[in-house]
Formats: sequence, C-alpha cells, structure tokens
Amino acid sequence: MINAGILGSTGYAGAELVRLLSSHKDVNIKFLDSRTYDKEEYTNPYPHLKNKLDKVCKSINIFESELLDEVDIVFCALPHGLSQDAVKVCISKGKKIIDLSADFRIKDPSLYEKWYKTTHNAKEELKSAVYGLTEIYREKIKSSTVIANPGCYPTSILLALYPLLKENIISSKGIIADSKSGVSGAGRNIMDSNLFSQCNENIRGYSIGEHRHIPEIEQEIAAFAEEEASIQFTPHLVPLNRGILSTIYADNKKGVTQYDLEDIYGNYYKDEYFIRLFSRGELPQTKGVSGSNFCDIGLKVDERTGKIIIVSAIDNLIKGAAGQAVQNMNLLFNLKENSGLEQMPLWP
Amino acid sequence: MINAGILGSTGYAGAELVRLLSSHKDVNIKFLDSRTYDKEEYTNPYPHLKNKLDKVCKSINIFESELLDEVDIVFCALPHGLSQDAVKVCISKGKKIIDLSADFRIKDPSLYEKWYKTTHNAKEELKSAVYGLTEIYREKIKSSTVIANPGCYPTSILLALYPLLKENIISSKGIIADSKSGVSGAGRNIMDSNLFSQCNENIRGYSIGEHRHIPEIEQEIAAFAEEEASIQFTPHLVPLNRGILSTIYADNKKGVTQYDLEDIYGNYYKDEYFIRLFSRGELPQTKGVSGSNFCDIGLKVDERTGKIIIVSAIDNLIKGAAGQAVQNMNLLFNLKENSGLEQMPLWP
Amino acid sequence: MINAGILGSTGYAGAELVRLLSSHKDVNIKFLDSRTYDKEEYTNPYPHLKNKLDKVCKSINIFESELLDEVDIVFCALPHGLSQDAVKVCISKGKKIIDLSADFRIKDPSLYEKWYKTTHNAKEELKSAVYGLTEIYREKIKSSTVIANPGCYPTSILLALYPLLKENIISSKGIIADSKSGVSGAGRNIMDSNLFSQCNENIRGYSIGEHRHIPEIEQEIAAFAEEEASIQFTPHLVPLNRGILSTIYADNKKGVTQYDLEDIYGNYYKDEYFIRLFSRGELPQTKGVSGSNFCDIGLKVDERTGKIIIVSAIDNLIKGAAGQAVQNMNLLFNLKENSGLEQMPLWP
Amino acid sequence: MINAGILGSTGYAGAELVRLLSSHKDVNIKFLDSRTYDKEEYTNPYPHLKNKLDKVCKSINIFESELLDEVDIVFCALPHGLSQDAVKVCISKGKKIIDLSADFRIKDPSLYEKWYKTTHNAKEELKSAVYGLTEIYREKIKSSTVIANPGCYPTSILLALYPLLKENIISSKGIIADSKSGVSGAGRNIMDSNLFSQCNENIRGYSIGEHRHIPEIEQEIAAFAEEEASIQFTPHLVPLNRGILSTIYADNKKGVTQYDLEDIYGNYYKDEYFIRLFSRGELPQTKGVSGSNFCDIGLKVDERTGKIIIVSAIDNLIKGAAGQAVQNMNLLFNLKENSGLEQMPLWP
Repeated sequence: MINAGILGSTGYAGAELVRLLSSHKDVNIKFLDSRTYDKEEYTNPYPHLKNKLDKVCKSINIFESELLDEVDIVFCALPHGLSQDAVKVCISKGKKIIDLSADFRIKDPSLYEKWYKTTHNAKEELKSAVYGLTEIYREKIKSSTVIANPGCYPTSILLALYPLLKENIISSKGIIADSKSGVSGAGRNIMDSNLFSQCNENIRGYSIGEHRHIPEIEQEIAAFAEEEASIQFTPHLVPLNRGILSTIYADNKKGVTQYDLEDIYGNYYKDEYFIRLFSRGELPQTKGVSGSNFCDIGLKVDERTGKIIIVSAIDNLIKGAAGQAVQNMNLLFNLKENSGLEQMPLWP
Repeated sequence: MINAGILGSTGYAGAELVRLLSSHKDVNIKFLDSRTYDKEEYTNPYPHLKNKLDKVCKSINIFESELLDEVDIVFCALPHGLSQDAVKVCISKGKKIIDLSADFRIKDPSLYEKWYKTTHNAKEELKSAVYGLTEIYREKIKSSTVIANPGCYPTSILLALYPLLKENIISSKGIIADSKSGVSGAGRNIMDSNLFSQCNENIRGYSIGEHRHIPEIEQEIAAFAEEEASIQFTPHLVPLNRGILSTIYADNKKGVTQYDLEDIYGNYYKDEYFIRLFSRGELPQTKGVSGSNFCDIGLKVDERTGKIIIVSAIDNLIKGAAGQAVQNMNLLFNLKENSGLEQMPLWP
Repeated sequence: MINAGILGSTGYAGAELVRLLSSHKDVNIKFLDSRTYDKEEYTNPYPHLKNKLDKVCKSINIFESELLDEVDIVFCALPHGLSQDAVKVCISKGKKIIDLSADFRIKDPSLYEKWYKTTHNAKEELKSAVYGLTEIYREKIKSSTVIANPGCYPTSILLALYPLLKENIISSKGIIADSKSGVSGAGRNIMDSNLFSQCNENIRGYSIGEHRHIPEIEQEIAAFAEEEASIQFTPHLVPLNRGILSTIYADNKKGVTQYDLEDIYGNYYKDEYFIRLFSRGELPQTKGVSGSNFCDIGLKVDERTGKIIIVSAIDNLIKGAAGQAVQNMNLLFNLKENSGLEQMPLWP
Repeated sequence: MINAGILGSTGYAGAELVRLLSSHKDVNIKFLDSRTYDKEEYTNPYPHLKNKLDKVCKSINIFESELLDEVDIVFCALPHGLSQDAVKVCISKGKKIIDLSADFRIKDPSLYEKWYKTTHNAKEELKSAVYGLTEIYREKIKSSTVIANPGCYPTSILLALYPLLKENIISSKGIIADSKSGVSGAGRNIMDSNLFSQCNENIRGYSIGEHRHIPEIEQEIAAFAEEEASIQFTPHLVPLNRGILSTIYADNKKGVTQYDLEDIYGNYYKDEYFIRLFSRGELPQTKGVSGSNFCDIGLKVDERTGKIIIVSAIDNLIKGAAGQAVQNMNLLFNLKENSGLEQMPLWP
C-alpha cells in the first residue's frame, strides 16, 4: 500500500484527488490537510463521500507535522506560492511529492516571478522538478522526486500540439489557442465572479494575453519544437461544471493533408490509453470525457485557408488536475498507469 | 463470467447499463440491441466509450435471434409495452431477465392496462415477476427469474417511505410526494419538450395526479403498510442532466420525535451500502449522489405543523434505473451486491 | 416626473429596480445607494446598463443625506433589519417608501422578532405599513405611505391561494407549499452555497419548516380565511437564474370540480393584467413569466385523491420583488398599473 | 400604423419577432404564418404571450393569400431556400420584405449555390437586395425594398471587424473568428443534437471551416477592405439559451496601440445607440446584452504577440436576428431606430 497525504484537500482539485485516491486499491490516505475545514469531518463540505470516507480534516504545519513521516507521497493542492515549503520539506524527508500548483512548472524562476508576481523560494528544488505531462515525459517522471503537475489549460493544449511540433509541421510561433472552461476550473473560491447567477446564461473571455498559463505553455512548445515559442491564449468561462475544450489554430506550413495528419497523430498516440483520436469529420466534446482521465483530440486540415485546427477536450479536474496526478503517482510506484483511473465518462 | 445482452441499448438507461456492465469485472456483453442505430458502431451515438467498447449495434428479432442462446441474462431497456415478448422468450429459454420497463411492475394487469392504456400480453409471466427494489425485496430477488426493475420516481419515494410505513407511523393514505427530476429522465427521445432551449432556465410540473408511476407507488405503499394506499404525486422537470429529489409529506400520526425518526431509519438501513441517512439539520442533494448508485435520505419532524417530511436523492439513471438493475444482477449471480457499482459520486 | 431614490441598489433586487425604473417614462432616479460599490460607476457591477445609465453609486447615511429631500419616493432594498431607520426617516420627511425587506411585512412585531432573531425598532411605523400584495390590497396601497413589499415565495403562494381561501373551499390549516426557486433569489451574496459549481447540476431543499417567509405566508392566509392558519412550506434551490414555481396542495373539503375551480379563479382574476390563468390540463412554467411581472396560475382538482393542487409561476426578481414594487409605486402615484412593466417575458 | 405579416412565425427567430412587434407601438401584426401550428392559438407553443397576443397561426400559401394585400411589410423567418418565392411575390405586390434567411445575403448566386447546396431561383431579385447590417448599410437600407437580414454569427463578427478593415489596420486574409453560441441559435428544431441532455454540461465545436456563414462573412470583409478576404471561422455550441460571443484574432500589421484602437472604434461607433465599446481591460460578456439589441465590443492589443483581439457579444435572437430586423424596419418607415427595441438587457 502507498501511504499518501494531501495538502489543500478541500479545494475542488484536492477533493477530486480525495475521491480518486479513496477508491484506488493501492492507496491509503493518511491525512487530509485543510485550513478552512480544520477539525471538521471531510464530508461536511463534501457530502458525496458520506459514509465512505471517515476522515477529519486537519490544518497541518508542514514544518512540524509528524504526519509527513507516515506517508510515501504527498499531493500538494495548495494555491500557487504555498507549495514551495512543502516541496523542500518533502525532499528533505525523502518523500515523493506531486505538486498541483504552478510553483514548479516553470523552469526559469525569473519567468515564474514575472508572471506570478511573487518570489520563488525553492530555486534549487525547481531544478530537479519534472513537468508531469505524463504521455510526453513518462520516462523522466518514473524516476523523479518532485513532479510539477501541469495546469488544466496547458494539458489540453500541449497534448493537442505535441505531434505537430515534433514533426515540425507548424511553426512554434503564432499559434492561437482559444479555450473554453467550465466553472470548476476557478476552484471553490468564494468570489463574485464564481456565483451561479453571474456565470449561468453567460459566456465571457478573461485575461486575454495575460493568463499565467502562458509561460508554461510556451516553455513546453519551445521544448517540443526546440526553438523559441509564442502563443496567443484566450481562456473563456462557460456555464458548465466540468470540461475544457481548446480550439487551436496554426498555419499548415508544410501543406499536410487530412490523411497525413491523422496518420501522424496515430503514430504518436495509438498506444496511449488516455488519448483518443477522432478521425475525419468527428470532433471531440467535453461531455465525452466528463468524469474521466481521457484527452480526446480532433483534427482538421482546412485546405481553403491553409490552416490546421486541433480541438481537444478534457475534464479539467481529472486529466487537467487530480487524474493526471494519480497517473503520475502510478508511474512513480510502478503501478499500471490507469490504476484507479478506469472510470468511464458519464453520458449524459 | 456472466454473459449479458441488452435490448434497447441506446436510450439513456440502456447506455448507462452499457457503461456499468462494460466496466463490471464479472460481465461480458454479448449483444447491444438497437433499432435506431442498427449496424452502427455503439460509439457513434455514445462517443464517451470510444476505444473502450468495440461493439456494433444490432436490431434484434427476439423470436429468431440465436444471440439469446449465448447469454445468461438479458437486460431489457425497451419502451413500455415492448418487453412482454422478450420476457416470454427469455423464460422459455431459461434465461434470467431484468426488465427496466413498467411492464412487469404492476401485479394487477387491469391496473396496468388502465394506466398504460394498452393490453398486457404476458399475464402468466407477470405472476412470477419480482419487484426489484433491492433493499426491500432482496431475498425474493435472489431466486427470481424475471425482475421488474422499479421506476426512477418510485425508487426515490419508496425507499424514503418504507420504515415509516412498516412502523405504522404514518397513514398509507394522503401521502404527498413532490418530485423534481433532471431531464435525462425523459430519455433520449427527440421531442419538443426535451429541447435544450425549452428546458434550460425553466421549471415545470407535469402529469399532476396522472403520472404512470402512481399505481406502482401505491401498490408498494399498500404492500409495506398492509392496507389500501393513495398518493398525491407531482413530478417536475428541472434543468439538470441527472438527479431526482423527492420531497415527501405525511402526517405524523403517532407524534414521533426527530430523535425517534432517525433511530427508526437507522435500524432499517444502517447496514445498507447504498442508503445513506442524513441526521438532524442536514438534507441530501442530488449532486451528492450524481454518478453513483446511492440513495441519500434526510428526515424532518416539524413539530409546529405535525408533519413528517422525508427528502430523498438519487441519480435517476443509476439507482433509478441501470445501477439498481446491476445491483439486482449481482444478487441473482451471488456477487457482492456493490460489484461494478463502487464508483463514488462526482462533485461538483 | 416622480423622483426616486434606491437604498441598497446593487443587490439583485435593487439592480432589477434600477433596470425597471431607468426605463420608466415617469420616473427620474435621483440616487443609487450602495455600500459595496461606493463612488463606483453603477455599470461596473452591472455592465448590462453601460452607456444607458450614467450614475455613480453612493453610500448614503440615511440620517444625514440631503438626497432624501430631493425625492418623492424611496425604494429600500437593504437586507432585513436595516430598513427600519430608513422608514422612520422617510415618514418624518413625508416621503413615500416601498420596503423590499421583511421588516414591515409582519404585523405582529413579536412574531417578526422570533423568526428574524432581532428586535424591531420601528413598531409604531409598523402599524401603518400596508402589505403590498398589489392584486389583493390595491385600495389600501393607493393611500398608504409605507408599503411592505411581499417576499418572493409568499407572492407566488398567496396569489395562488387567495380565491380558495376567500371562498372557504380549503382549510386554512394543513396547506402544503413546495416551492422551487432559481438562484438569484439568494441575491448577489458571495457565499459558498451560491457558487456556480455548488448549484449547477444540483437540486436541494433547505430550511424545511423553518424558512422566514412562513410567518408572512401564515399571516396572510389567516387574513384571507379569517381564521388561524398554518402552512408546511419547503423551498428548494434549482439551477436556473430566475423563476419560482410553487406547487400547493390542499384538501378539497367542499368537493369542487375542475370546472368550478376555473370558474372561481376567473371571477377573482379575470381583470387582472398581471395574473394569467391556465385552464384544464395546462400548467404554468417559469419560462413563461421570465423577465416579466406576470403571475401564471394553473389549477387541478384531483378527484382520485380529493386534493386541489395549484401551481404558480413568477419571476422572483420582478413580480417577486422589483416589479411588484414598481406596480405599487404606480398605484401610489395614480399611474397606469402596468406602466414601466409592459415588457413581455423572454422565450426561450 | 405599419401593418406587418410574419412568415415562419413559430421558430425561435420568428417568435422573437412576434414578441418585439407585438410590443412595438407603431406596428400592427396582421398574420402569423406557421405550417407546424396551423389553426392553433399562437400561445400554444409560446405561452409567454398568453392573454397578450390573441392570434391564431395560419399556414399561408404565399401565391394565393390575400393576407399579403393587407400588409406594408413582410418578415420572412422561413428556413433557407424557402424565402425566394416570398420575396418575388412581395416585390410584385410592392411590399417591403425583410428576409431573415440566408437566401438574399450572398450577392454571388453561384457562391450561394455552392455553400447551400441548392439552386437560387430569384437571381434577379437578389441584385436589388441590401445586406441589412444596420450600422454599416444604414443609408442603403432606408431606400431598399428587399433587406437580407444578416446571420447571427456574421453580425457579431462584422461589427467587430469593420473599423479595423476600413482603416486597413489588419489584413483581409488570415482572420480567425472563434465563436460560441447559445443553443437557441439552432432554432426550435426537434433533433438529437438539440436535446437538453446532449447540450447541457457540454461544449463542442462544429462545422469547422465549413459553416454556411463563411461566404457571408468573407463577402463583407472583402467589401469593407476592398480586397479579397478569407476567414477561419469556428462555431461552438455552449450550454446557455441566448448569446453569441465571438473572439476574433488578427495580425496587428500597422502596430497600432491599445490607445489608438480605442480611439478608432470610438470614431466609428460613438453615436451608435446599439454598439457599446469597452475600454482597456474590460471585456463584454453575453449576459450584458441578453434580451437586448446591443452589440458589446471589447478591444485588446497584445504587444507581446503582435496580435489584435476583438471580442463581441450579442443576443443571437435579437441583434443576431429579430431585433436587427426590427431596427431595419424602423429605418424603412422613418421611425426612431431604437423604436420597440429600448428594452434593457436582463441581469442576471
């Protein structure tokens, strides 16, 4: 059994981790950290687990807690800026850690500091962190100690772009990603813009050209393409709970055909359990992945305009957060990669 | 391995059966009947199972098909009126059958004929059918051949009422059940009243005092109470995909207290895996059961008015249809009752 | 021109008042009070009025503000407990006031204090307040100074019950009202239970037998029936922005027929512009009134059970709050009763 | 009084016309054509107008009906392909006609025939039709007989692009428009993809690079820019009733600043009642225009990427269909342009 603890267990990503890990046959949850619900039953804020998870939340001081000694791995679902200390302590105690925040995703700390407007206090640890986009960095992940679990938008965009960039079919500059996200992506944060009546019957874009996932996406595009990268990224909020749909536009600089494109993606992804390719005419939709760790990808060569359009769909809380974290944990502990993640999507 | 076939596999209840059975480790799906999608890939109408279920739909003639010989059990998710022949054929071939339609729920065929406005052509077979409300009729179900899987509304109402009626705390007459259902309860029927724009941002009642689930509910109330029964039942359509919330009102004829009530329900249900009781002040909500086979029940004694109010929540497609069918199958084949049904609800 | 000021103008009910009054040809808005958005453009929190309402919010001290001298009427959309001072000041200055809070609805101050758990500091002024259920108290309203605008749930329930009680067709005790409300009814309050992801894909009941609208509803039932009253009232939250549907159950003690019932309601309401009756078989739905001041009412005599069921639908922010307030203002100033309220509902 | 008739009055665009015209003080509705609801009360399918619109639908044979002689103007909300005969008859009788279908939008009939896969049988009449994008073609519209009312997506995209193209700030080629639409855009068509349970909790793209609005958009871009045009257009379906948000990407070929851009749009649109510009940082959202004829536009110069992003929001049934049609009618009859369209958006 793997003993696991969760820091920040009562946000939506944390709660999804709890749901997945509590059903994972090889995992034993040792602690559920929460500042907001300290000393409360976990099922007070999350009654869906009533009777099936008998645990009390505890606000943990990472420097003092002996609970850390009891676990093999820590999942850190704290807000950005708060996981650096946790990572330091885990490393010092020889524990694996999967960090769901952005703190260890961006390899250049000055870039992190610029976009996140805070200093980075674990620059040394940052060097050893592996970017946990499982399908791409599988081998590195297996032997790492600190995994920086990717952001939800980046996951949906990078898996969609990887074959195109590796094959040099599109340029690493000038890509446009127009993403639409369900509201759970904003977390369980109690703020005006997350209210039902503000979000329901509404569509809006936000942070155009300024979203913090931009440096993360560009870093990986550059890594895939082995040259400098830039992306125009626009997130939108749409009225559903779960799901991200990313529609990605790039110039078809080599003039590949629809047939070529499907062939190329097949080569890259045909053995991937969690990536499902849609062929000509078919497009993925978020309902098709809701409640699962799948990433569905559709492809379109528009001969009229000379553009390639890739559409990808994920469940933002699973493949975009907790599910990919479990997938990474499975790699770390030599389990079947889909262990605890076999659940099929719900339709409707 | 249990070999199973599904008649009517492309309605929403059928599709939920397919999802559950395809993940059930002891079940092998042998055929997926569908008139609408005959000869099409099952994943055309249900892309959420893409790559994970490689089956083609087939329109089956129940009288001729040899496919029936290959299975141990048939799930029948056909519209009302169409499962009588299927049951006859299954019985004649010695197959178990779980019928999700109303055809075998109502023991008095004349009552069936009155409410469903059609004749019943399997009156003999009706006699041997067992009403598949698992928690109540568990022992009978184990040894039955034909199981009449309960309706979604009746499941939510009857599990909520059972202890009250068995203990004679309320009268079997004059009960009011005000139920609210998500739109998937209407199935994947292509009709004006199921259109998104007609249902979204709308609440409406329908079939007040005339809904076909009324005789089914009254039959069971009478059985529990061992006297004649009547119910005022009002279903409402509310804009969500999954979930039924039933709010049930009855006179507290014996003046039980809140404490008594919780105690009584605890006695009846404390060992039930799928029934979760909420104690004082807490109320169930549909989100807490969404995607699961749970039935959550909340209790309220209103001393001011002399009434007892019971609130129950289920996922209409799971505990209200396919999940309870699988639960019944597990009983029939001596499997753990929650086998294939361990999935926790999704929140949010 | 009527000069009007609004206290508490940036909650949802306040904002709806602003929208209605800004389009009312006989009204001139003089001030928009808001603590939260003091000194901000009103269109910051409410961009739907951008370019069409050029006003800045102001946090007003009711005791000192000279703005009060400039107006003929004050609309008070402050939270419960905060409008008592406003009413006192308005009376002392000879201004009309329409209070959308509960502070002046309940004639017995001890009942108010019991249910609202606060003291009432304007008991003298309470005596002269008129309950602003327009269709019922039209004549009294015309000559009043302080109007206590009814609650949203009470409006939907009381208009539905009035003819039954006046005609003594049902008892004033034992009525059950099961109401379903959109989330805007909870206001623009920034709290966990109002978050999109908590409300969407969810149905839940709350405050069963304990909701503060109970004494208000019972007071009016007693007034209509001229005897003591009790109601079992259960509100539910359903995932839409606007709309209340109330399903009301009572014993048909005189055995009226469906025909009688429609006839009786016709007699009471046939000349009411804002009340629309549905005849046999038809039921109202919230979409049919959304964005309007209508109250739609459907009637059902269930001969099988001996019950009468009334279903009513309103837009909670209009007939349930701001619209009825404007309707009352129209009466106070001898305008056409539907002035500024002619807008038809939006479908879909 | 203007006497008006509506062909195809029971689709969603037709129904919105009925709602707007029935409240328009200068308009008298003479007939409501409907094949589906022939001889039925109009309020059967549209109960929101109950008691306020006392008219019966009639299936009209355009060639024989004498009703045409009674009207000054015909609104044609028939499906594509069916309005060509209507236009011919109206012209022959000297009636004005506003056609909401695509039949008269595309000036090159061969292009129409290619994208709509049908022949065009009114090529002569096509020549005299004016494209009814009111703000752009106001003068031409005033004196025209046949107005081709623009599509919903084109309206949202073209108003957003007009100043950029007129000022030659962006190229007429390579523009990307990523649009998100509420489900009412698909009309009240009874088909699987419009079902609530298929659309709710879902986002999907469709017709990428193949949508029939493409030639219409490109025609107008070319007209604005006075050179050949191409657009990459991707529509998406999101789960709300009303609203289109278009996010439009173009290269900032002249390096204009944010300040310049706001200035330019101000010059073009400052006197337009229905166009509202958002300045730096603020972005439009569909809720802000819902229920109104406004088109809200936000602007963003991204200096990091060298792109200009324009975001526009409309209510697809009003500015995207019926509202713009009424706006055009007002022009034709020398009424105030916002007559009958003064209604403010609803929030929330």
